[in-house]
Amino acid sequence: MTVSTPLLDQVDQPDALRRMSDADLRQVSDELRAETISAVSVTGGHLGSALGVIELTVAIHAVFNTPADRLIWDVGHQAYPHKILTGRRARIRTLRQAGGLSGFTKRAESEYDPFGAAHSSTSISAGLGMAVGRDLAGRDNSVIAVIGDGSMSAGMAYEAMNNAGALKSRLVVILNDNDMSIAPPVGAMSGYLARLVSGGAYRTVREFGKQLAAHLPKFFYDKARRTEEYARGFFTGGTLFEELGFYYVGPIDGHNLDQLLPVLRNVRDEAQGPVLIHVVTQKGKGYAPAEASADKYHGVSTFDVITGTQAKPKANAPAYQRVFGESLIKEADRDDKVVAITAAMPSGTGIDLFGQAHPTRTFDVGIAEQHAVTFAAGLATEGFKPFVAIYSTFLQRGYDQVVHDVAIQNLPVRFAMDRAGLVGADGPTHAGSFDLAYLGCLPNMMIMAAADEADLVHMVATQVAYDDGPSALRYPRGEGVGMDMPAVGVPLEIGKGRILREGKQVAILSLGTRLAEALKAADTLAGMGLSTTVADARFAKPLDREMIRGLAEKHDVLITIEEGSVGGFGSFVLQFLSEEGLLDGGLKVRAMVLPDTFIDHDKPEKMYAQAGLDAKGIVAKVQDALGMSAGAEASPAAKRTPPRAVPKVAG
Amino acid sequence: MTVSTPLLDQVDQPDALRRMSDADLRQVSDELRAETISAVSVTGGHLGSALGVIELTVAIHAVFNTPADRLIWDVGHQAYPHKILTGRRARIRTLRQAGGLSGFTKRAESEYDPFGAAHSSTSISAGLGMAVGRDLAGRDNSVIAVIGDGSMSAGMAYEAMNNAGALKSRLVVILNDNDMSIAPPVGAMSGYLARLVSGGAYRTVREFGKQLAAHLPKFFYDKARRTEEYARGFFTGGTLFEELGFYYVGPIDGHNLDQLLPVLRNVRDEAQGPVLIHVVTQKGKGYAPAEASADKYHGVSTFDVITGTQAKPKANAPAYQRVFGESLIKEADRDDKVVAITAAMPSGTGIDLFGQAHPTRTFDVGIAEQHAVTFAAGLATEGFKPFVAIYSTFLQRGYDQVVHDVAIQNLPVRFAMDRAGLVGADGPTHAGSFDLAYLGCLPNMMIMAAADEADLVHMVATQVAYDDGPSALRYPRGEGVGMDMPAVGVPLEIGKGRILREGKQVAILSLGTRLAEALKAADTLAGMGLSTTVADARFAKPLDREMIRGLAEKHDVLITIEEGSVGGFGSFVLQFLSEEGLLDGGLKVRAMVLPDTFIDHDKPEKMYAQAGLDAKGIVAKVQDALGMSAGAEASPAAKRTPPRAVPKVAG
Repeated sequence: MTVSTPLLDQVDQPDALRRMSDADLRQVSDELRAETISAVSVTGGHLGSALGVIELTVAIHAVFNTPADRLIWDVGHQAYPHKILTGRRARIRTLRQAGGLSGFTKRAESEYDPFGAAHSSTSISAGLGMAVGRDLAGRDNSVIAVIGDGSMSAGMAYEAMNNAGALKSRLVVILNDNDMSIAPPVGAMSGYLARLVSGGAYRTVREFGKQLAAHLPKFFYDKARRTEEYARGFFTGGTLFEELGFYYVGPIDGHNLDQLLPVLRNVRDEAQGPVLIHVVTQKGKGYAPAEASADKYHGVSTFDVITGTQAKPKANAPAYQRVFGESLIKEADRDDKVVAITAAMPSGTGIDLFGQAHPTRTFDVGIAEQHAVTFAAGLATEGFKPFVAIYSTFLQRGYDQVVHDVAIQNLPVRFAMDRAGLVGADGPTHAGSFDLAYLGCLPNMMIMAAADEADLVHMVATQVAYDDGPSALRYPRGEGVGMDMPAVGVPLEIGKGRILREGKQVAILSLGTRLAEALKAADTLAGMGLSTTVADARFAKPLDREMIRGLAEKHDVLITIEEGSVGGFGSFVLQFLSEEGLLDGGLKVRAMVLPDTFIDHDKPEKMYAQAGLDAKGIVAKVQDALGMSAGAEASPAAKRTPPRAVPKVAG
Repeated sequence: MTVSTPLLDQVDQPDALRRMSDADLRQVSDELRAETISAVSVTGGHLGSALGVIELTVAIHAVFNTPADRLIWDVGHQAYPHKILTGRRARIRTLRQAGGLSGFTKRAESEYDPFGAAHSSTSISAGLGMAVGRDLAGRDNSVIAVIGDGSMSAGMAYEAMNNAGALKSRLVVILNDNDMSIAPPVGAMSGYLARLVSGGAYRTVREFGKQLAAHLPKFFYDKARRTEEYARGFFTGGTLFEELGFYYVGPIDGHNLDQLLPVLRNVRDEAQGPVLIHVVTQKGKGYAPAEASADKYHGVSTFDVITGTQAKPKANAPAYQRVFGESLIKEADRDDKVVAITAAMPSGTGIDLFGQAHPTRTFDVGIAEQHAVTFAAGLATEGFKPFVAIYSTFLQRGYDQVVHDVAIQNLPVRFAMDRAGLVGADGPTHAGSFDLAYLGCLPNMMIMAAADEADLVHMVATQVAYDDGPSALRYPRGEGVGMDMPAVGVPLEIGKGRILREGKQVAILSLGTRLAEALKAADTLAGMGLSTTVADARFAKPLDREMIRGLAEKHDVLITIEEGSVGGFGSFVLQFLSEEGLLDGGLKVRAMVLPDTFIDHDKPEKMYAQAGLDAKGIVAKVQDALGMSAGAEASPAAKRTPPRAVPKVAG
């Protein structure tokens, strides 16, 4: 729908805001909200967070001299209005689309994005680095980090606060407190913030907002003890932040420019060290369907602006997340040692379902992946079977804990790694490309990848049954392939793959959901006269050595394929083959992995096609290995590929 | 020297302590201190931390019912007295020796070690897991985590506190505040703790210790508001911990059993949720040479108990740490954009030297690896050249930050990874075995490994010069090989290796300090009639494709060797060779990597021998590849290994 935005139309760059009256800024905010809703209705995306920071975005750009002043949005999914104000309005309806704007902040996209994000809680560290850099370079710009209350549960934010409070460098941290990140808030810090807001101070600020704000400069940083006490008494609470060396201001109504503008101006002009401004906002603010929704339209598909009705993508098969959640519920019904842990991602991982079925055995620890892993390790020492349900990319946050607390101690913690491989619209920051490499190198670790949703059920059962050490199970984002589902999971034999199709010349050994493409490729290859075996490895570790040996010995070409980087499954296979001398005879082996580059957001299948990890890519790889020109039918010569040379053993 | 320990001799297991009078416990403490000093004088190790917790160790085991009550020592290097009291006294003089006791807590070693450690700040997470497990199982044991003030700067500890404060599970956290971890304390939390201790409360507790302790039960957890206020007023401060949901008790004199015993008994009997006991101790307490030393004998070699004089291991060459620090100083002398960052390891990494030369460009962020990496990324966005000097094993703590904040944004952060490979007495928890795998899979990352201390100088210069993206440089613990040192570092050509010795049949491609063993092996192989090339890859990424192609095409056998796991350099080489069809002709390739197991502490060279990564192992690997029986001279057949089959290209 068309939105009338006469004032916003004048804002090509943020400096236009700096020439406007406060009243105009209010109107710009309203127009910016309408434009944001309109844009996201077309693209889908993180709407609720964006609507919560409309006024804050306008106020920051109006008060501070971006991009010379550095503005860092934590996570970055709330930065759509920021993008509209910073020269990207013309492209805003390409958000999260192929070739379009990123759904997060991104350095390559704009000088107004001094730091890219997507994972949470990085902004204070980055901002402190910029502030220290500024000091070393003798400049005097401001550095502003905007971080949500949910992001404050991550240890990284605390580490940065702790360091900032000691370094005393001038840094503005704006705590955007909407009491809700993706899921309802958890953790003691959340309770603390709620107490700050529910205390008398916030009501007082609200009642006397305008007047107070006008007076702020008079007592802020005033050296006189009485005034100082008055200020601190007025803005009660915040002692926790003050103990960490920050000057605390707040809570401030984040939708009221009459409070935001004077406070920000004051901080800009007067701050001498680290300041924390506690801003209270409402996720989904100003759009009734979002405000009324339980998740405040955190992440939406395209929708109708009038009704708020979201387009429902039609699913041909249940999503892996749902299959995982439901499988784990069934396992927990039978085994009271099964417990589930999520780091602030209950709905994304299917743990919301588990939590409804087994609430006392479900633990949402907040955005705290390091703790999640070692908390699970502690539970494992007491004989429980903890499942850490976590996105592959976020497990990177708990990597040392996986090494040090789980693998070295050989504790049977179960990792259910969602979003393995490429993930689509969220782009490279959310891709689960590296887990096979970073987990596969660890002794004691057992690793599976589901090729389809039925195998996922069995693999969850396998993890429950496997109590000899840690295990990891990876599966992709989104829906399965569509197939009959087993009523109950049956534990698989550890380290055993399966052969789905038998051939003689080419072997394709797949790990994970590329299996469907492998089977397609086998059809094509068969049509070209190349008899092809297709195997599903199931286990990246331990390898099915017997099966792989057979594939190597009985075929001329062996292709491995996985949804991961170099250093993972393909590398383990190459290591095994070389170690065993199975390459010495001239087997043509190729390990198909993600290319050594970060792939921009697109539909996952297009990303895989770009990476060459589809049926077409497999066929091309086989042709290349056999010296056939791409697209050509196998020549008679190829069809009678001579038997491989016998290993030339000397001595 | 012999120590007279009549009471300690009666303590085979901790239950003996529970039958002793408080006065006897004081004597046991004195004897335990003497025994600890005596033992470490023989073995070397972490003495200062152990001496700081003598009384605390006795008090905990006397009050709590270990091992049914779970006692977790954070880091675990202070657990020597704990080991003496828990059935391991007979072996205490094998600490950190091959086949002997671990220098840390270790589950496999004793039921009194419910959680192994070595990296810091894991204890609260693990303890919370155990506490929740206890609740789910319906048991009623206590869980006690003892954590140092230095470890409290890590985000992981905060994540755990935040979760514990919300879960309300019964958990005792003892904050062992010695105001010094390894280096002097940094960060705002440290300042906060100092203010708590220097306030009136601590003095009051000291003066009225006995009396207070006797009265504790009366007002602790008393519901009456007046009494509650009295208690809180008495133990002032601690609001930061209370805001996070912990009941705060302290500060307590950690060397005074008259305070420790009643407080611990009270907490044991009365606590209903998470409690934090703030205990003040003195590192090195009770041993004059340690107390007088700047580092409080944090880590010592063997020493003379009477004089405190430590044995000086004679160094044949400068340590890599020192070479790194001195090289970086010279670079920073020339380039004012060079800055250095350490996460609480200034002396271990050589950053202490850098800090003396360039204090304003040196940042010790505390035990906060996540923040360290992203702080560096922030500095890089401002045009600085940040060097994060960090142990390979500790960079695991900042892995997601390396991926998300550095690699994806292609920011030129320089990682100087100390302690790469096996590290000796610190054992598997400190081994730097995985960095080649977990960094090598990341796009944009450039990775070098120094083969000797002279090359390290050039590689530091290379990192300074290389500003196109992130880089990592790995080098081992300990002294170099002993060689002429360049006066100044000269940047290397990126991705270029060097050939040190030319041969015809066997090629050994080494990455890192195995180079010396590779050269030794070449000598042996030459003596067996096998003409051997030795190359130093220098770069794990990008590979020297041209050099490797040449090695593959001109030799019958190609061996790679590195000080790391599968998934690293060898895997990259195998991937390249297979991709390029260089394996199709029957090259005998073997990638020598660390075995898929955690290797217990020993002398590094013995650990490498056990891993097969020495000259003998290389020779055996070549023999195996050529089908020669181990130890045999190359047969005439081997000497005239037939030329490899030409790739059998079809089509």
